[in-house]
Amino acid sequence: MGGDVILTGDRPTGPLHLGHYAGSLKKRVELQDKYDQYILIADMQALTDNVGNPEKVHDNVLKVALDYLAVGLDPDRNAIFIQSLVPEIAELTMYYLNMVTLARLQRNPTVKDEMKQKGFGANVPAGFLTYPVSQAADITAFRAKYVPVGADQLPMIEQTNEIVDKFNSLYRREVLVRCAPLLSDVARLPGIDGQGKMGKSTGNAIFLKDDAETLSKKVRMMYTDPLHLRVSDPGHIKGNTVFSLLDAFDPDKAGLAELKKQYKRGGLGDVPVKDRLLRFLEAELSPIRRKRAEFGKDPGEVMNMLKKGSRKAREVAARVLADVRSALLLSY
Amino acid sequence: MGGDVILTGDRPTGPLHLGHYAGSLKKRVELQDKYDQYILIADMQALTDNVGNPEKVHDNVLKVALDYLAVGLDPDRNAIFIQSLVPEIAELTMYYLNMVTLARLQRNPTVKDEMKQKGFGANVPAGFLTYPVSQAADITAFRAKYVPVGADQLPMIEQTNEIVDKFNSLYRREVLVRCAPLLSDVARLPGIDGQGKMGKSTGNAIFLKDDAETLSKKVRMMYTDPLHLRVSDPGHIKGNTVFSLLDAFDPDKAGLAELKKQYKRGGLGDVPVKDRLLRFLEAELSPIRRKRAEFGKDPGEVMNMLKKGSRKAREVAARVLADVRSALLLSY
Repeated sequence: MGGDVILTGDRPTGPLHLGHYAGSLKKRVELQDKYDQYILIADMQALTDNVGNPEKVHDNVLKVALDYLAVGLDPDRNAIFIQSLVPEIAELTMYYLNMVTLARLQRNPTVKDEMKQKGFGANVPAGFLTYPVSQAADITAFRAKYVPVGADQLPMIEQTNEIVDKFNSLYRREVLVRCAPLLSDVARLPGIDGQGKMGKSTGNAIFLKDDAETLSKKVRMMYTDPLHLRVSDPGHIKGNTVFSLLDAFDPDKAGLAELKKQYKRGGLGDVPVKDRLLRFLEAELSPIRRKRAEFGKDPGEVMNMLKKGSRKAREVAARVLADVRSALLLSY
Repeated sequence: MGGDVILTGDRPTGPLHLGHYAGSLKKRVELQDKYDQYILIADMQALTDNVGNPEKVHDNVLKVALDYLAVGLDPDRNAIFIQSLVPEIAELTMYYLNMVTLARLQRNPTVKDEMKQKGFGANVPAGFLTYPVSQAADITAFRAKYVPVGADQLPMIEQTNEIVDKFNSLYRREVLVRCAPLLSDVARLPGIDGQGKMGKSTGNAIFLKDDAETLSKKVRMMYTDPLHLRVSDPGHIKGNTVFSLLDAFDPDKAGLAELKKQYKRGGLGDVPVKDRLLRFLEAELSPIRRKRAEFGKDPGEVMNMLKKGSRKAREVAARVLADVRSALLLSY
């Protein structure tokens, strides 16, 4: 580790899937050599809309950690940690809540969308409405300069920087550090059913933990072009999950372009295209699957790794918290 | 200490005054022998609407502590502590925020009134809107059974018990303890200007720290009956601050009843009534003033006492937090 700090992570509400892999995990593996990367398993945030189901959060902490290790994230080069094992984040959140108005929280476009999806209305749990403040604590606790996000999460960066600016201007010194987004250049993958994006809990994902048989079954049932009934029919590429995944995973771009032409013209069935995709996915996922099984043999050791990462994260967060408390004249 | 737990305390936003003394401090001195009393100096809560003025909060932590010691609260028989030195409260608050809806917070009558007073509207800081949840953490962190309150603070007890019930029912065990109010039997004292209640920051209070001369001046300028112009005029008792304070501090109830009769009939001037009040107040306040000055000589020692109390409080709060985390399956 060394260099600028990156804060990234996931809510442990399901195992990670191909969408995570293509959009962020692969990137993290690249970044771990150049940055001081903090990778958060956000159990407290996951509870904001899962109080009735702590089992789900609990079970997925280990699963997400296994996914990290399996894709090659190195616990020595990153701080991989559990949010609730860094209580400094909770305390920072309490102070930041005083710097954000209710109106501002209600204007957050990401939270607004999620609230609509979940049908919360005014019955939104206060913890859910305020989670962007807790995210600002996640980010600032490590003086993170970069936060990898999708475009839909830019409001979270904005909210964090508003808190940073307000804090620093109120107490007339640079206590907190502004952050910038690292925008993902990979389009979000569609679900295997062609309905919307691939999601942890929507039943349309290929998980990193899927075995070869499950993977093959999912590729075989994958949504293509419902109008492409006979091999001789011309087919559509747009909205065709198989081609979207090939775009993300086929290393032979020229070959893929040729394939697309043929498919559009007619005379190419779904089966050979799916076979091609399966070959690439299997090549990519089988070493991950192997490593995952290896690490999965000793869950206690994985938990020790998370505890060690959490201790490392706590040390840094404690220093930031001390600065924040000092600005607030709470150093007794 | 030993026996049922009481949680009480004050926001350090000003030194304590006669109203606090009559309505709660005297009671606490009685209770310290019968209960396990936790006395909270709520610096984090004070910051919820004072982010722009942390100096005020900081300066008053010590002042409030001196007031406690001066009235006879014993740091060995009570846990006198600073809220922000017990970070377990912040973490509990984060979990409880998931159990309360925005609509419920907006319905809280006490917060509604305070928001109106402060002119917040939708620009209320999120930390202020959610402070009843933080109070639920203050109370439950020590498994407090009783909370001394005025009638206007009953909604805070209600909110706490709602969280307790929701938590225990969600996780199917008695993790948190319900609390009951200890209603004050002393009416709230009016301000010396006769305008509303005596308040920390409204310029109408007699402070425990006032010296003899200030006390005498405040009694001499005290609001009585604006229609009682000549000694021979009949006077009014109702709304007359001097008589309200005599009701609270005159030990000779029969003598006071006789005095009121005379005042109402006419023929009794304000001066002798004020002299009588001053005599009782001076008798009550001069030993407090002496003790306050004594303790004030060594602020470092007072801070040590607060730190010791905070350590004691932390031990208990950490046990409750461990139970809460275990119910939430966050014991790693």
